[in-house]
Amino acid sequence: MLQGHGDDTYDHPGIRSNFSSNIFPHADLTGLKAHLQGKLDLIERYPEPEPHSLEEVIARKHGISSDNVLVTNGATDAIYLIAQTAAKSHHTHFNVGPLPTFREYEDACRMFGLAQVNGCDGSKKAVHTILWLCNPNNPTGDLYLKAELEDYARRYGLVVIDQSYEDYTLEPVMSHQEAAASRNIVQLHSLTKTYAVPGLRIGYVVAPQPIITRLRENVRPWAVNALAIEAGIWLMENDVCVLQDLKDLKDPKDPKDPKDPKDPTLPQSHSGLRALLAETRRLREMLNQIPGITAAETQTNFFLVEMASKTAAELKDHLAQKHHILIRDASNFRGLTPQHFRISTQYPDENTCLADAIREFMLL
Amino acid sequence: MLQGHGDDTYDHPGIRSNFSSNIFPHADLTGLKAHLQGKLDLIERYPEPEPHSLEEVIARKHGISSDNVLVTNGATDAIYLIAQTAAKSHHTHFNVGPLPTFREYEDACRMFGLAQVNGCDGSKKAVHTILWLCNPNNPTGDLYLKAELEDYARRYGLVVIDQSYEDYTLEPVMSHQEAAASRNIVQLHSLTKTYAVPGLRIGYVVAPQPIITRLRENVRPWAVNALAIEAGIWLMENDVCVLQDLKDLKDPKDPKDPKDPKDPTLPQSHSGLRALLAETRRLREMLNQIPGITAAETQTNFFLVEMASKTAAELKDHLAQKHHILIRDASNFRGLTPQHFRISTQYPDENTCLADAIREFMLL
Repeated sequence: MLQGHGDDTYDHPGIRSNFSSNIFPHADLTGLKAHLQGKLDLIERYPEPEPHSLEEVIARKHGISSDNVLVTNGATDAIYLIAQTAAKSHHTHFNVGPLPTFREYEDACRMFGLAQVNGCDGSKKAVHTILWLCNPNNPTGDLYLKAELEDYARRYGLVVIDQSYEDYTLEPVMSHQEAAASRNIVQLHSLTKTYAVPGLRIGYVVAPQPIITRLRENVRPWAVNALAIEAGIWLMENDVCVLQDLKDLKDPKDPKDPKDPKDPTLPQSHSGLRALLAETRRLREMLNQIPGITAAETQTNFFLVEMASKTAAELKDHLAQKHHILIRDASNFRGLTPQHFRISTQYPDENTCLADAIREFMLL
Repeated sequence: MLQGHGDDTYDHPGIRSNFSSNIFPHADLTGLKAHLQGKLDLIERYPEPEPHSLEEVIARKHGISSDNVLVTNGATDAIYLIAQTAAKSHHTHFNVGPLPTFREYEDACRMFGLAQVNGCDGSKKAVHTILWLCNPNNPTGDLYLKAELEDYARRYGLVVIDQSYEDYTLEPVMSHQEAAASRNIVQLHSLTKTYAVPGLRIGYVVAPQPIITRLRENVRPWAVNALAIEAGIWLMENDVCVLQDLKDLKDPKDPKDPKDPKDPTLPQSHSGLRALLAETRRLREMLNQIPGITAAETQTNFFLVEMASKTAAELKDHLAQKHHILIRDASNFRGLTPQHFRISTQYPDENTCLADAIREFMLL
């Protein structure tokens, strides 16, 4: 397991602005919390050994069969379950999408004895290889084209597409139905990210039924907490939009933005997301105006930043101690350097404070 | 994973008396629930990747180092983690204590490719074998003598002692310190059972430090929910006694019982437990008076019952439908028959109702 993750507020008490997690942390979860307050008696009973009730709600909502859905103790639990099952299904090798990407894929595969493909250009058939793609990709915010994904699925034995951040982009991603109807695609989803409840641990897999059946053989019973199951069902049925309160956010630098977040024809979630992505553009532009700072392109609410001098570890310490701001030191992503950090867009005033604090730090 | 567990109230709505779980389900958890109501904001933040804060509280309470403690997503998660780690540490075989016993040990070992020892009388050295003992044993309520445990530890490579039900017996069990100071003992504990919170999923392992280190290499990050960590810390610090409200229970058939549950020299937990075990004796005696019913000896609050005719499945259906009573059909424990069921003692009036209902069923 990698040491040094984002959202490490447990090590940094007193943080006021948290840019370190990819989740937009200002969701209004009042309704969910009120619901859970009335359901605390659930702690006194065993949960279902496997959370089939939540699987059925997810399947119904996305128009697929519950034979295509498997709920796990967070998406990370699913990553380890998939690696374990692949190792037992004669997959001897693994590969991951272009670096940097989420580290747990690699760690999970090595835990179960899979070897990384070596010197393979990815163009040959690799039937015994499992390929892991994160779409949108953590930490870059990049997206794969649909044609690319289809090409990978033709060439690899098994392709995992981690769509944990699917609700933080306006670009098209693969649908639940497409994964369910595929031959060899295992799609990961994270209720943690969709509904901004990382403390609860709820993720799920969508895949063709024979793959779900094999995965179930390696599931540990009672792995999903009773309150997490209850919360998952409530969130799916009430379809809470975590970006709802952003709908009035606008890019202050572009008041005539044709993608008007107030456009009444857009669903509320899109309206809030457009506002968040516009604010992401504004934050990136502010950062790119700081000498020695390069904020990379992104198609989501989070992105990488590279410093010409000093280290992300120094910046992280400085921001936490002086400004009560938390960022993600990204130097432990394979393919990155000690000069890389990752941030996710927050409210406009927080973003302006962050840019000011980084400008000040670079002049120290 | 075994199909058909106890506490399956999710499949039997409307149950009024639940004898199917080994946990005494009448604990007063008002304080914990009030605490959690004020902590629901925890769902908005990632938990610690590994719950070290809870590990430290447990270690302090039991006078051992936190290097000897590993908290898991329920004790069942620990069983799979131990099997996985044993398989990677050159343990090729497993064995379990006398049947019947908890099924997950065997399932976990087979999942990770360990083979059951075959035709072994258990008297030879078995350095590559992991032995699983449940103490007190589920489903029989039997206990191992300390000398027996020490003998096993000398002969087997690794000995797992599952003490999930340690707080439901007055007989001595191995201490945390003894396991921490051992060479090859891995001890399992279940906050689920100790504090009657099976919905939350909190268990832990106590073992020598080198074994804990190897186990940590196979831990999945963020496996323990933020509310479970918070509840675990609160329960340990407040030392809730789940049998407290039983302290005035007495065996009505033996008012002069020398082990008086009101004895002021006994700690409250012992006082409540003595009352529960006395009531267990009364329930067993009532059942043994029913023609065709044999209730086995036990040293805890749960025990096996065998029917001379009819099946446990039929009895379970009858009791659930006619009396809103849930029992554990124990026929899927290896070594038992379709005539076996398991019950755990409840309040006296519930126990009397159960005996009456079974007597009626046997006459049908």
